[in-house]
Amino acid sequence: MKFLTNEKLVISGAAGMIGSNMAQTAIMMGLSSNICLYDIYLPGLEGVVEELRHCAFPGINITFTDKVEKAFKDAKYMVSSGGAPRKAGMTREDLLVGNTKIAKQLGEDIKQYCPDLKHCVVIFNPADITGLVALVYSGLEPSRITTLAALDSTRLQSALAKHFGIAQDKVTTPRTYGGHGEQMAVFASTAKIDGKPLTDIIGTPALTDEQWAKIKQDVIKGGAKIIELRGRSSFQSPSYVSIKMVGAAMGAEKFEWPSGCYVNNSQFKNVIMAMPSMIDAEGVHYKDVKGNATEMAAIEASYKHLQAMRDEVISLGVLPPVSEWKKYNPHL
Amino acid sequence: MKFLTNEKLVISGAAGMIGSNMAQTAIMMGLSSNICLYDIYLPGLEGVVEELRHCAFPGINITFTDKVEKAFKDAKYMVSSGGAPRKAGMTREDLLVGNTKIAKQLGEDIKQYCPDLKHCVVIFNPADITGLVALVYSGLEPSRITTLAALDSTRLQSALAKHFGIAQDKVTTPRTYGGHGEQMAVFASTAKIDGKPLTDIIGTPALTDEQWAKIKQDVIKGGAKIIELRGRSSFQSPSYVSIKMVGAAMGAEKFEWPSGCYVNNSQFKNVIMAMPSMIDAEGVHYKDVKGNATEMAAIEASYKHLQAMRDEVISLGVLPPVSEWKKYNPHL
Repeated sequence: MKFLTNEKLVISGAAGMIGSNMAQTAIMMGLSSNICLYDIYLPGLEGVVEELRHCAFPGINITFTDKVEKAFKDAKYMVSSGGAPRKAGMTREDLLVGNTKIAKQLGEDIKQYCPDLKHCVVIFNPADITGLVALVYSGLEPSRITTLAALDSTRLQSALAKHFGIAQDKVTTPRTYGGHGEQMAVFASTAKIDGKPLTDIIGTPALTDEQWAKIKQDVIKGGAKIIELRGRSSFQSPSYVSIKMVGAAMGAEKFEWPSGCYVNNSQFKNVIMAMPSMIDAEGVHYKDVKGNATEMAAIEASYKHLQAMRDEVISLGVLPPVSEWKKYNPHL
Repeated sequence: MKFLTNEKLVISGAAGMIGSNMAQTAIMMGLSSNICLYDIYLPGLEGVVEELRHCAFPGINITFTDKVEKAFKDAKYMVSSGGAPRKAGMTREDLLVGNTKIAKQLGEDIKQYCPDLKHCVVIFNPADITGLVALVYSGLEPSRITTLAALDSTRLQSALAKHFGIAQDKVTTPRTYGGHGEQMAVFASTAKIDGKPLTDIIGTPALTDEQWAKIKQDVIKGGAKIIELRGRSSFQSPSYVSIKMVGAAMGAEKFEWPSGCYVNNSQFKNVIMAMPSMIDAEGVHYKDVKGNATEMAAIEASYKHLQAMRDEVISLGVLPPVSEWKKYNPHL
């Protein structure tokens, strides 16, 4: 097999359903011939490695360890799914305390063992906050950490395609911005339906206001719906999409769905949120969010919600006050 | 995305862990833009389809149904993982009866709904027998049905590579033949270790007879080891390898690991077993098994075991006597 690079790619949380799928996906995409699987649960991790070895992928070196110092040493790329999973009835925010502590440790471990990390995708929820915590403690440049947010936009694409009975890729640039939680801002003005602006269709018999409101709700509840249907959290879509993200940072196809990224400009301050963005080998790049008045109100509300969650994590003592972030990360 | 074909690929049993991974794997390999997921458990199936839609693969039409007549109509390729797993309290015979009945139905459904099927890979256990039952009732040419057997050989490759501390692909043409159960025949004479015949190494300090016996046992128990480590049956390796098999039949890279295929020659009669074989767009091709005296005794024992299982299924009334197979399948 041909691989894009032999720089070390670390999958953190590799014993789990998402992590094990990420490993298989990354290998199948031919990203790195040097892949290290890390998890604190060694038997499960060994089982995953055995399964991957039984696939007999040629030309690859799969290593694994339950020791973070060994896993992260010389790592150049990383995807971390290393949080606790969301259970039925739990919101992403319920996971806040436990997972932000894990994120703090992740950031500290990056700073200690792989400060030259080129890109890290953080996907454990609430990802906007865990990614932010990891960023502050890692000392990495903000362009080098992204969080999984695109699933909200791909869910919007899927829901619109189903409504109109068309191929999914005929729904172009559907976008949600802001938080990857229930306070996300679902945009209409970016999307086209087979070339026609979605905003020209909403409020007509082809897509009534009520139907559009229902689609937005379905997008927001997209993750919960998977739990209801499969009896477990989604794992195939988060793993596939997050590997596409890290792959873009490794020089594969650019990732043009929204990523969660650190924003600190005139619009929004000191948060990670889904933005109009692109990941390439230089990291993540973002532009200002633009939308109509309703959409800008929604993104403002989502931003305020993220600020409040961030401030809650500060008050819990897991994050330092914003004014002190520079002490931990000079790039902020 | 570019796909190899737009001929219909059916994943049967797609709501399960193996089937859902197969669907993702087949799409990522770019096999068919026309993939139909079939399972009798509709909510789980819908959850899998939702996850795949959230991956936003471009250029693909993913359909799904719990109706076999709709799923199999116009199918050209199929992988079937649609058996029941062995549950607590079930005897081996209970599993045999249950899964061979499912295999009979599979064969009848193929005959009724997609007699032009070009290739079907059967992977539910005991695959040598379920594949045989499906073959008899399907009416397909024997070259068009294969069963998953390669994992035994890839496990042998992995175990030898670990023992010698070398890259896995430095162990070339490791092979097991015969049954895909505990009566498999693990061969030594086919394999080379970094270019050196394995038979020249066995019985030397580099690989003592005891160590070789242990490796053979580890290969035979490879599936059970995954259950012990992961707390569930293997699903990533069977799905990846079976999709490689059907992909080869669709015109992708030839599959040169052993496949279970129907054998009826001077050596072995009227069984499906792992053979020196190759799958390409014409189906599966096999050669005679060759080995040293020990290996030929092992393959003979494995064959006799498969014959006995086949005859048990005949005595249970699920398969007709061999003399009547032609009435069901003129190609046999």
